Amino acid sequence: MFSKVLVANRGEIAVRIIRSLKELGIKSVAIYSTVDRESLHVQLADEAVCVGSAKPQDSYLNMKNILAAAIGTGAQAIHPGFGFLSENSRFVEMCESCGITFIGPKSETISLMGNKANARIQMQQSGVPVIPGSEGFIDNVEEARKIAEKVGYPVLLKAAAGGGGKGIRRVNNEEELTNAYEEARREALSAFGDSRMYLEKIMENVKHIEVQVFRDEFGHSVYFPERDCSIQRNKQKMIEESPCSLVTPEQRKQLGEIAVRAVDAIDYRNTGTIEFLMDKNHRFYFMEMNTRIQVEHTVTEMVTGVDLVKAQVRVASGEPLPFRQEDIKLLGSAIECRINAEDPAKNFMPSIGRINYLYFPVGNLGMRIDSDLYAGTEISPYYDSMIAKVIALGHDRHEAVEKVKRLLSEMIISGITINRDFHLAILEDPEFLSGKTTTDYLERVFLPKWKRSEKNATV
Amino acid sequence: MFSKVLVANRGEIAVRIIRSLKELGIKSVAIYSTVDRESLHVQLADEAVCVGSAKPQDSYLNMKNILAAAIGTGAQAIHPGFGFLSENSRFVEMCESCGITFIGPKSETISLMGNKANARIQMQQSGVPVIPGSEGFIDNVEEARKIAEKVGYPVLLKAAAGGGGKGIRRVNNEEELTNAYEEARREALSAFGDSRMYLEKIMENVKHIEVQVFRDEFGHSVYFPERDCSIQRNKQKMIEESPCSLVTPEQRKQLGEIAVRAVDAIDYRNTGTIEFLMDKNHRFYFMEMNTRIQVEHTVTEMVTGVDLVKAQVRVASGEPLPFRQEDIKLLGSAIECRINAEDPAKNFMPSIGRINYLYFPVGNLGMRIDSDLYAGTEISPYYDSMIAKVIALGHDRHEAVEKVKRLLSEMIISGITINRDFHLAILEDPEFLSGKTTTDYLERVFLPKWKRSEKNATV
Repeated sequence: MFSKVLVANRGEIAVRIIRSLKELGIKSVAIYSTVDRESLHVQLADEAVCVGSAKPQDSYLNMKNILAAAIGTGAQAIHPGFGFLSENSRFVEMCESCGITFIGPKSETISLMGNKANARIQMQQSGVPVIPGSEGFIDNVEEARKIAEKVGYPVLLKAAAGGGGKGIRRVNNEEELTNAYEEARREALSAFGDSRMYLEKIMENVKHIEVQVFRDEFGHSVYFPERDCSIQRNKQKMIEESPCSLVTPEQRKQLGEIAVRAVDAIDYRNTGTIEFLMDKNHRFYFMEMNTRIQVEHTVTEMVTGVDLVKAQVRVASGEPLPFRQEDIKLLGSAIECRINAEDPAKNFMPSIGRINYLYFPVGNLGMRIDSDLYAGTEISPYYDSMIAKVIALGHDRHEAVEKVKRLLSEMIISGITINRDFHLAILEDPEFLSGKTTTDYLERVFLPKWKRSEKNATV
Repeated sequence: MFSKVLVANRGEIAVRIIRSLKELGIKSVAIYSTVDRESLHVQLADEAVCVGSAKPQDSYLNMKNILAAAIGTGAQAIHPGFGFLSENSRFVEMCESCGITFIGPKSETISLMGNKANARIQMQQSGVPVIPGSEGFIDNVEEARKIAEKVGYPVLLKAAAGGGGKGIRRVNNEEELTNAYEEARREALSAFGDSRMYLEKIMENVKHIEVQVFRDEFGHSVYFPERDCSIQRNKQKMIEESPCSLVTPEQRKQLGEIAVRAVDAIDYRNTGTIEFLMDKNHRFYFMEMNTRIQVEHTVTEMVTGVDLVKAQVRVASGEPLPFRQEDIKLLGSAIECRINAEDPAKNFMPSIGRINYLYFPVGNLGMRIDSDLYAGTEISPYYDSMIAKVIALGHDRHEAVEKVKRLLSEMIISGITINRDFHLAILEDPEFLSGKTTTDYLERVFLPKWKRSEKNATV
């Protein structure tokens, strides 16, 4: 087992990882940017190294400085958390060549899954159902037309090397196809130097369902109960649950086995999450794979009682998985609300400032608040606006929802604006409570309703 | 189900009960004394009624005012918490005659178990092993001598109506017996108007093991895994664990079945705890029964995932128990440290003052801190010095201990003196870590060692 690990991240996830390291008896090294000098992750770690100035490019994405910090402090491994360098295969290669263990999959796996087209092809080969569309790449607009006709409009044209929304076009009908194809190709070529395209049907009225898997170097694979992450705004998850109230135990098992087959096929290491869309008929379609721990892993931890970060560290150090499939049981129903420093009434504008009073309702059963806040924290404009995850476990979904509502209501974070009341409004909405909400619910159904009620409230 | 419940308590237990009521959708009424006006339990409840001045006798023990508050607010039930009126059978009778449900056993049961001699006799009749000693009461000193000889010195002479240490004498040998007997009788007569005595062997090198049981009005009984509460100072528990690392699954079942037999025999209602002593040979001896929720119920909640207060409310409202014996499973190992506002270096002198900064480490899996503290709380000299319970759940005892150490280390409670470092020192002591510590460990073994090290540290 490692004796010292560097945590290449900030905020609540850095704090969360450092805490698990402490409990494992492993020394932790924090990195920080100049504005994060006073951050909780810096205070909790055994050592801390400043790796650059506020801008992520200069600090939390500064691969050389981070590696230098690891080497300088004698850390044997790096935990990347999520975001930042967590899915950067070049960084993983650099770690490997410095003899430092990257706590995550191999660099090849990250590359493979990072390329959305290749990931899709790989999954098709492993027998994982993918979103209807092209098999591999499209050679010309005629081929695109044939496939689009077969799967039905609307479709999405996507650059194989895509990312950040570049080289992507929504195509509603045949008329739009030629132009869209040419535009997207041109954009992809200039952005990525790679004009290869593929095509997928746009799935509507679907749930976002994802399955986290774990695999050790002895080839043991384990899947976890699915998460329902359908409550999204701007493709950003806001509320996550596990299990999905519509998925049956048989479907859970089936989906888990598909996920395990997929990771076995690529000799996956450590943890990752396969994201699916689920249609009204409970058919699942592969969307993408995240080759890292995710924000919402905490929901799974609560509902199964497994510390996934500890398992990541163990598996990365060469130990076998500390659990078998039959050990993974649902303890009830868990729900997580992401608390952001933002103002829903002002189009979710980020809020910055100093937390001058803080109260977290820390007692009673089945609660957890992962956060790097303390009274006195400065929220800076440089990083993600997520400042806390409020998670509740109940015997059933009703109890979990009642509990998370209570937690949100009791919480006091003063000095900035947060999206707490917006969450509370969702948690009271009958459509949300039905458990049937799909990925378009928040923007199409809830937001308009909420804006009307806000308007009425101010008048 | 009730629509409104009054919580006849203060501090962390009042907060904890109010939180469970909220999750059940039941309105809560807090009571408070004049110095508790700003307390968290008052802030969290839906309504709050001042029932008197600071002294417990005037407020939290003021039965008439509390009943008036319940009647005035339309509360249908009263949850007594622990301490104060929780084992006062007269108060239970008063509730009954006002048509208000007392959330706990019937008044007769509280009377029966409140009289230690009768409880002992009752348990003997139910086939529960008791501490060797008299069967029923002792008629004269000659009978006492015979029994003492049979069970072996040292023995304890106890007043049947006893309480508060009155009418109790330790007898080390035959020579001391006559005087002790006469003294104790005289004391008991003047204190309780009842000079009846009984005798028990003083058990040495024993663990304090207790079993919580639950029984509904349909006669369903369920026991919970035992708690080991051997870490005590001045007969006050300081650290509690569940399960006891020395008890085997077979013994757990056996002990649980004994406890269930005992509560079935007295047609018990709601929850209660049977306290046993366990000797080196894992023989168990009944000590007493607590007919209320206890401070340490939280350890059981963490290790089983059951909300015991919610179950209390359900059962009191006439619902059947929400779980069966086979639903009660050990999820790992849990440990609780009672944080007191006191100074271990000054003979545990209570500390009072204003909490001017507070940080509770609220994140990660398997943690819970039940407390009524917030930044700004005033700790008054009128009530119990326990201000927080820090509880951790791990897969095994090692993980639970590492986690609770981390929680204690990260916690910041400034403005008063607390016993945090004292707890941390116990949690590092090899004898504690062996799991074999008996009820005399803290005062006989640990305290002298700790005082020496404190002395060295100050020199």
